[in-house]
Order: sequence, then structure tokens, then C-alpha cells
Amino acid sequence: MSEPAKTIEGWYALHDLRTMNWAAWKRLDSEERSQIIDEFLATMDQWQQTADQREGSHGLFTIVGQKADFMIVLLRPTMDELNELENEFNKTRFAEYTVPAYSYVSVVELSNYLAADKDPEEDPEIQARLKPALPDWQYICFYPMDKRREGSDNWYMLSGDNRRELMRSHGMIGRQYAGKVRQIITGSVGFDDWEWGVTLFAHDVLQFKKLVYEMRFDEVSARYGEFGSFYVGMRLPAEEVAKFLHV
Amino acid sequence: MSEPAKTIEGWYALHDLRTMNWAAWKRLDSEERSQIIDEFLATMDQWQQTADQREGSHGLFTIVGQKADFMIVLLRPTMDELNELENEFNKTRFAEYTVPAYSYVSVVELSNYLAADKDPEEDPEIQARLKPALPDWQYICFYPMDKRREGSDNWYMLSGDNRRELMRSHGMIGRQYAGKVRQIITGSVGFDDWEWGVTLFAHDVLQFKKLVYEMRFDEVSARYGEFGSFYVGMRLPAEEVAKFLHV
Amino acid sequence: MSEPAKTIEGWYALHDLRTMNWAAWKRLDSEERSQIIDEFLATMDQWQQTADQREGSHGLFTIVGQKADFMIVLLRPTMDELNELENEFNKTRFAEYTVPAYSYVSVVELSNYLAADKDPEEDPEIQARLKPALPDWQYICFYPMDKRREGSDNWYMLSGDNRRELMRSHGMIGRQYAGKVRQIITGSVGFDDWEWGVTLFAHDVLQFKKLVYEMRFDEVSARYGEFGSFYVGMRLPAEEVAKFLHV
Amino acid sequence: MSEPAKTIEGWYALHDLRTMNWAAWKRLDSEERSQIIDEFLATMDQWQQTADQREGSHGLFTIVGQKADFMIVLLRPTMDELNELENEFNKTRFAEYTVPAYSYVSVVELSNYLAADKDPEEDPEIQARLKPALPDWQYICFYPMDKRREGSDNWYMLSGDNRRELMRSHGMIGRQYAGKVRQIITGSVGFDDWEWGVTLFAHDVLQFKKLVYEMRFDEVSARYGEFGSFYVGMRLPAEEVAKFLHV
Amino acid sequence: MSEPAKTIEGWYALHDLRTMNWAAWKRLDSEERSQIIDEFLATMDQWQQTADQREGSHGLFTIVGQKADFMIVLLRPTMDELNELENEFNKTRFAEYTVPAYSYVSVVELSNYLAADKDPEEDPEIQARLKPALPDWQYICFYPMDKRREGSDNWYMLSGDNRRELMRSHGMIGRQYAGKVRQIITGSVGFDDWEWGVTLFAHDVLQFKKLVYEMRFDEVSARYGEFGSFYVGMRLPAEEVAKFLHV
Repeated sequence: MSEPAKTIEGWYALHDLRTMNWAAWKRLDSEERSQIIDEFLATMDQWQQTADQREGSHGLFTIVGQKADFMIVLLRPTMDELNELENEFNKTRFAEYTVPAYSYVSVVELSNYLAADKDPEEDPEIQARLKPALPDWQYICFYPMDKRREGSDNWYMLSGDNRRELMRSHGMIGRQYAGKVRQIITGSVGFDDWEWGVTLFAHDVLQFKKLVYEMRFDEVSARYGEFGSFYVGMRLPAEEVAKFLHV
Repeated sequence: MSEPAKTIEGWYALHDLRTMNWAAWKRLDSEERSQIIDEFLATMDQWQQTADQREGSHGLFTIVGQKADFMIVLLRPTMDELNELENEFNKTRFAEYTVPAYSYVSVVELSNYLAADKDPEEDPEIQARLKPALPDWQYICFYPMDKRREGSDNWYMLSGDNRRELMRSHGMIGRQYAGKVRQIITGSVGFDDWEWGVTLFAHDVLQFKKLVYEMRFDEVSARYGEFGSFYVGMRLPAEEVAKFLHV
Repeated sequence: MSEPAKTIEGWYALHDLRTMNWAAWKRLDSEERSQIIDEFLATMDQWQQTADQREGSHGLFTIVGQKADFMIVLLRPTMDELNELENEFNKTRFAEYTVPAYSYVSVVELSNYLAADKDPEEDPEIQARLKPALPDWQYICFYPMDKRREGSDNWYMLSGDNRRELMRSHGMIGRQYAGKVRQIITGSVGFDDWEWGVTLFAHDVLQFKKLVYEMRFDEVSARYGEFGSFYVGMRLPAEEVAKFLHV
Repeated sequence: MSEPAKTIEGWYALHDLRTMNWAAWKRLDSEERSQIIDEFLATMDQWQQTADQREGSHGLFTIVGQKADFMIVLLRPTMDELNELENEFNKTRFAEYTVPAYSYVSVVELSNYLAADKDPEEDPEIQARLKPALPDWQYICFYPMDKRREGSDNWYMLSGDNRRELMRSHGMIGRQYAGKVRQIITGSVGFDDWEWGVTLFAHDVLQFKKLVYEMRFDEVSARYGEFGSFYVGMRLPAEEVAKFLHV
Repeated sequence: MSEPAKTIEGWYALHDLRTMNWAAWKRLDSEERSQIIDEFLATMDQWQQTADQREGSHGLFTIVGQKADFMIVLLRPTMDELNELENEFNKTRFAEYTVPAYSYVSVVELSNYLAADKDPEEDPEIQARLKPALPDWQYICFYPMDKRREGSDNWYMLSGDNRRELMRSHGMIGRQYAGKVRQIITGSVGFDDWEWGVTLFAHDVLQFKKLVYEMRFDEVSARYGEFGSFYVGMRLPAEEVAKFLHV
């Protein structure tokens, strides 16, 4: 008999990755570019007001390599708000100078593997994890993943006890990185092409490699992990946007 | 000896997903945009007349994330009508400002796993399910899927009894979501690249994740399910089209 | 010791799928469009003369969904003729308003699984099947396929007797669809990316689904079939081309 | 202990496949087209001089289907020469009217499976095979391939004796096609995405299908062959280039 | 219990592959092209100053075949510097005439499989390997790779001793190529889509094939290696850039 994992969910998340059309951007005169940057900063300012009221969170990051030039991460209480913000952004003049590179739709998720005999609706720590303010740590790493269902390596055919035991030891690796790496797990079954999104933050970018590599030797990843593309980058605060876009 | 599943079929379905070319759309003057929106609304109005006469059904939905900006779902008694509507849409001025993102061709399907000692041609409930009016619930989720044929996990090599038993327990999960999620299964063997399309409707978008995730632990999905891309979004009623396209 | 299947071959086949660039097509004035349509109809007329002389066959079909807008199927005694016709078409003005979507290069094939103690060069029925006139039935379905070579499901490691037995029972399903579905098998080993192309014709499009789904439960497909993309559509006779292209 | 196959290598090979941008080509006036064709023929003439001095070989071929319109095959003693010729071609006016479709970088390879107690540096037959003049037979077939490394079907875990025995029986099939099909095997481990390129020549295009299909039942292909895309076409001699490009 | 491999890391690496938009490049007048080349050479000169101060290393290479026209390899102490250099390059006029083809983000990595009872922070040889000056050998080969995690061929489920033993024999093959091939291993777990990047240098391009092919018969590659695309090319020193770009 199947024994599904239980999950509780928080804010909805949109990871929106874009490349710049630098050639078109440079063809604008500098005044137009200034106006467009100001409009984008005004948008970021609205996002910040939402964050200040604890009704969402967001981050802007540059991405290293050709996969994307930047990533916007948006967290909101409803998926409708994400859709609205996405459409608003797509209609801005700035969006005309960007090319969609990848996006991910998911929702912040906590699972019962991580135990909890508290009422999640009341517990402030759980609430803070379900509605997280994105930390302003310097580096970010995002990747989607699945649990494998292949022959004798089928996560979903394991008993709940078995999965719990495996996740516990997996979690212990994560705990050794406390203070070095913070992670936000978002679930995307029914929303996007992988089962989870993993968003990591660090002060030292090398810790992403250390953590993910160490975990790969753990049975949960070694036998049951399937990974999508990895995106790595660094925080782009509002005050550095103009410099990033300066040509 | 092989023992194929028996199916009965209803209306043909076209899922048509598009992204907007917002840059080109914005370059139009507002009068042109108004005309184009009016033309598109006239098209939707014709679709609505067909629906009013119970000779088809349709829906328009915005899609979250970069995969698409909107999805049109069309149900009609014949595939010829779908082809005609598709060609008509492609020739509209509005279509010029959209870019094809994905499409799916299938037919509403009921299978004998779900029992039925009634004459499907006579039974009004079965007829309603074969020729369904798309519910006007707020959220939609669409994904194509296959039953796996891999080594010892080969659905099509199972006996009919075995498959029936597995589907029965699978269906019982679905029934727990009655009132929360409605599903329309469309078959696409011989029509498109996966074996089925699954179209789900919900009042609360989170229920898609709950249902699909719970099902993933059930043997039918865990061992035998192969899934394509997931598209999630929300109803875009005719009266909100102008707002959606306002720039 | 390996025991290859024996095959006999007939006419060469090119399946050429295209999407219309409707935006560019509409930008032409109606007189230019008329001229281009006339040129294309003249090309079709030449094809028809070849068919009338039993030196080839052809068909034009609209395709449902975004994968393609139409498919040209050309059969000729030599591959050189196909290449010539393809290049001629590519140089027409009409081709400028189309975008290549998919193509398939193969040759009509009969295999000894289907027995035959006759001399194929003499037998008129075999000759008719090797050099088939495409039937003018309303619906078409095309897909490429492979026989699987994976672990214990390796078609090419089976004995000839074993394969023959499996194909015989497979063929018996096909025979139940006599009068409902006609199929042309074309071999493409050494010519294109899959081992065979399957082109089906029907009066009722639903019969494609019925046939392909029933076959999927047969061991030949269940264990040994690998399928490419499916394209489904309907006959577009020369006299309806102008209407199809009318904007 | 691993027992690698021993190989000896000859000329380096570049397979360069292109589609024509016919629309842009037609927009040129006929004088410009003539000039561009003349320039390209002059390039071919230089290639021919190299071939005449036995310092390389080359061929030009039309390709059937949408994958490409033509393929240039270049053989040279060094990879540097290939890179130079490729860059030269890319800078020609003709290249502007072509779109890269696929390319393959490899080196002519003979393996010790095929025995040889002679000194390859001295033996004229081996030298001729290492530095082959491309035959001017009418048809060409090109495809890349790997030897499989999957579970119990892992070519590279077989003993040298085992591999040798398998290759010997494989080679015997090939020998039955002597005079019908000529093959040039090029190795690409470390150079391109597959392990080998196979370039076949025939007077009768059907022999490609016969040979590759017969081989597929042989254990080397059946259990251990992984195949990329197949490209098939026919010789385009310099004197027919103008006709091929005539619009 | 899992026993992760221990690694030490050095400089961060960006492999940036581009194709030239030769058509657009040729449309510039020769003076503009000269200016753009000079700007690019000035950029290379800055890179060289960094290399002279042993604060990084870099190389420019032409790539054979259509996958790319050239590759820039940049090594720097921090990922932030790579991102900055990448953005700077993207904003140059030269970048407008290039099209991104592939990129790879990783960090120079040494693993304890290769033993070391020295303090890596102090040992000059280890430091030199962690912060390597790219050798000015004529040929380069780059490819990304994974260790396999599939059924019974799961590298990450092996014991540390087992992996060490396998890597030792693998390394012995590499050592036979000392003086012929130099390799820089960069780790990319958590940074890019494969687990490692392999960058090889040789005086004779054939040695890449010899080395990679020989290794493929070794159990580490045969059973556990998964390989991405291979890119092969040759050094393009600053003094030959103008010639490479001359049209």
C-alpha cells in the first residue's frame, strides 16, 4: 500500500531567468536606457514594499555563463500574483531587451520527513520557513530535481519508513553546512517539469560545490537523485542594477 | 495473449499554447490593438455560440512561467473542426503577435477500467463525460503522459486483471479529490507524441500538487507513469482579455 | 548466428512537413498570392501526371496542431527523383512562405515475415504494394519507429522463428482493421533516423487510435516498439488548396 | 585488466552539412549569383588541385530531406588544414546563403581487429586506406555511432578476444557487399560527440539499407551499436553545381 | 555509510564558446572591423597583464566544426571576476558579431584519489596545479563528464577504497601520456550541468584520441563515465587574431 509523504506549503515561487539582448540594448541612446533602468528600479521598489510588508520576497541575481544573464526570484502568497507580476514585467520596456532563458514555477514546501509535532499554522519558526525572506547572502545556486523511478531504484516504491530513514541521514549532511549554506525547497509536482526546485544561498560560492558533491555520495542522491540544469550567480542589489546595465 | 484495454471516445481536443510577442504587440498603435482584440473576442464569441448549442466547449487560460503566455483549449465532435478552427486562428491578425509554444491533439477517452455495464450511447452521465463542458473553475493544469514500457516495468505486458486492479486503487486516490479537482482524460495514441493528455481543473491551485504528488506514490504512477511537461495557469474569461493584452 | 529479416523494396518515399509563415503570407498582396498558388497547383498537376502514368504517387495533407501545417508525401521509383522534386519545391516562391518542420526519407518495404512463395517481380499484388498509389481516404497518420534493442528486450537478438511468430500475431491485429485502416510501411535503415516509417490512412480518424492502441498491448509493440512523433491530418485535394491558403 | 583496441590513423576528416537559405539566395540578382557560384567553383578547384597532388580528398553531395541541402566532405593530413578550409569557406559570399546543419570532426581509422602483420607505414594498401581518395560513386550515406556501455551490454568491458571475434563476424557481412558498398571509418573519440563516423558509398542507394539492416541483426550492432542521425544523398560534381544553385 | 571523495579547489574557470556571425561581420567596413579587433586585443592584453601577475590565466582557441568558431578559457581566483569579465566581454562591440554556442562554469579541482600527505596550502607543486597557467601547447580538447549512477553501475554507491583503486589504475593510463597530454580537471557539481570539465592540451592533436580511447576501455570510463560534447581546436595567439578575423 502506498504511503505518500505529507507536505505543507507556503508561498508560491517563480524563478525567471533571462539573457540580455546587449546588441539591441546598446543601440538605444543613453537617455532611453536611463529611463528604462528607472522604470525597472521602480518595479523593484514596488517588490521591496511588498517585502517590507512581509507579503512576499524577491531577489535579483546575475548568472555566470551563457545560460542566462540574470535571474529574478519572486515569492508570493498566491500563484495569481506571480502570474500578474510576470505579465507586468513582460510588458515593460526593459523586458524587450531580454530573452527568456528558463523559468520555474513551484511552491515553498516542508515535508514530514523533517518531523514536526507542532501545529504548522501556529508555529512561528515553521511559518517563517514557509514564507521565507530570501537571505541577502552573496551567492545563489538554483537547480530542479526529481526522485528517480527506475527499475530497482524507485524512490516512490520505497516504504515510508525507508524514505524517512534515508532523508534523515541526507538531512544530517545539510545540517553540517548550517551557517554556510541556506536552502529553500520548493515543490513543483503538478506545476512544472521537475518535482522540486532547490535554491541555495551562500557567503562562499565554493560551499555549493562542497555540499552538493558531498550529498551525491549519500544514497538519497546517489541512487535516487535526478538533476536538471544548475544555475549559479550572485546577488545584484538594486543599487548596482545601473552599473550592470551600463554600456 | 494480449488483452487490450477497451476505450470509448467523445469529443476531439486541441490544446494550443502560445507565447506573446509583446515587443511587436507594443509597436502597434492602440487603435490597431483594439481592433485586433475585438476580432479575437468575436472569435471567442463564435466559440461560445457553439458551446451554448452543446456542440463543443472551449477555454482560454493564462499560463504561469516562460513556457507559454496563454493556452486555448478547444473541444469539438470532429478532428476536422479542430483543424479548421486552428487554421482560422492562425490566419487572424492576433495570431501574428503570438509564437507557437506547444500543442496537443487528443480525444476525450473513458476506459473500461472504470467499469460500466451501461450502454454508453444511451447513458446521459457517460455522454456528459464524453462531451464535457470545460468547468469554469479558476485553475487549470495540463500535462501529457505515457504508461511505461521498460524492462520489468512494462504496463502493456501486464494482464488485464492486473492493470484493472492497479487502476482501481489509482482511481480511489482521484475520488478523494472529488469537488476539489476535476479531470478530463484525453487519449492521443496515434494522434500525438504521448499516450494521454491530462487536463485538471481546481478552485485551489495547490490541489493539483496534492493530487499529482499523492498519486506518484501509487504503483500506477510510481512504476508505470512517464510524464511530459506540466503547464499550470488560470482562467482568462473573455471579459478580461482586453486587460490581459493591455500594454 | 544472426538471421536477418529479408525485405523487398519498392518506391522511395519523402514525407515533407512544413509550417506556414502566415504573417509573411498575409503581407503579400492578393494577386501575388494567387500567382504563387497557381504555381504550386501547376507543380501538383505535374505530380498528378506522373501518378496518372503510374510512375509515382503523392498526397497533400493538412496536419492538426502546431507541429506542422501541411505534409507532402511523394513516392518515386528512385531517390534521385525525390531529391530533384524536393529541390524544385524549395526553389518555388511558395516554399519561401513555409518553414521546414520535419521530413522523412524511406523506401516502401515488404518483409518476409509476411510470407510469399511467389516471385515478387512477377506477382501483380506484390508489385501493387511495392509501388502503391496513395489511397484518397480522408485521414492520414504518420510516425517513425524502431524495434528496441535494450537489455532483455532486444528484437535483433531474437531468433528468426521467434520474430516471425511475434510478427504473425501482430499482423493479425492489423488484419482486423482491413477496410478501416490502410498502412504503407517504409523502411529507413541507412536513410533516416528511425528504422521504419508508418503511414496510415482511414475514413474515420478514430481508427488510428483504435489500431495503434490495440497493437501497443501486443508483445511486438509492448516490448519491442519505440515510437517517434505522431503526425495526424486530413487530405487536402488540389481543389481545396486555394481555400486552405486563403487569407 | 583493460585491453584497449589498437588503431592506426590517417587523414583528418570534416563532414560539413548545410541547408540553403533559398529565399535570400533568390533575392540576389542573377549576376551576383553567378559570381558567387564562380567563387565557390574556384574553391572547389583548389580542393581538386590538392586531391590531384594526393594531399587530400574531398566530395560535394546533395542531401535528401530537410536535414541538410548539401554536405562537403574534406580529408586532409592535418586538423589545422581542416580548420583553415572551414574558416575560408565560412568567409565566402556563398556561405552567407547557407545555414549550418551539422558537422563532424574525425580521423580515418583502421583498427587491429582487422589484423595486419605488416608495417602500416610501408604497406601501400594500408596507406591507401589511411589516405583514401573519396570514390566517385553516385550515393553517399553518413552517420556517427558509439559502442554501447549499458548494464550487461558494455562493449568496453568485453575482453579483447571477445571483441575481436565479434568484429570478425561483423566484418564478414561487410565483405559480402564488396563492390557494392565502400566504407570509410573515421574515429572521433576526443574530437566529436560520437566515437566513430561511418561514410558509405554505393552505386545503388538501396545497398545502404541492405547492408545496415543486415548488420543490425549481428551482435556487434544488435547489442552494442548506438546510432546517431543518418544522412543520405548523392554526388554533386563541380559541373552540376550551377544547376543545383539555379533559381 | 557514504564516504565522499575529498577535493581541494583552486581557480574558477569559465569556458566560453562562440560562433562568428560572419555575414554581419563582413557588412562592417574594414576600418570598423580594425577598431573592433583592436578593442578585443586590448581586452586580451588586460587578461595578459593579469596572467603576468599570476592572478589568473586565459587562452583563446579556434574550434573545428560547426559547434563553435572559437573558445575563450578564463581562470580567476573568484567566480565574481569571471562574471565581471564575461559581462565586460558581452558589452564589447566584438561580442555583437558572435553568437553564444556553449559555456561551462567550474573550478580547478584536485581529489584525494591522487593522494597527498602534504599541506596543499603550502606545497608549491599543488599550488601550481590549483592555479595553473594554461600551457601554450598547440591543441586543446574540452568536454564535460559525469560519473554514472545507473542500476549496478553506480559510482557514488561504491566504497571509497573501491573508487580509489579504480582511479589509481585510471590515473596510470594518464601518466603514460606525460609530456604528450596535459590535463586540467575542473569540478562543476553545483555550478553547471555536468560534474566535471576536462581540458586537455597536446602538441599532437591525435594524442587526445589515443588517450581518451585508451581510457574508455578502463573500468572507470567503461562502466562509470558519461560524456558530454567534445570540442577540439587549436591555440589562437593574440598576434593571429587579426588574421583569423580578416575577411
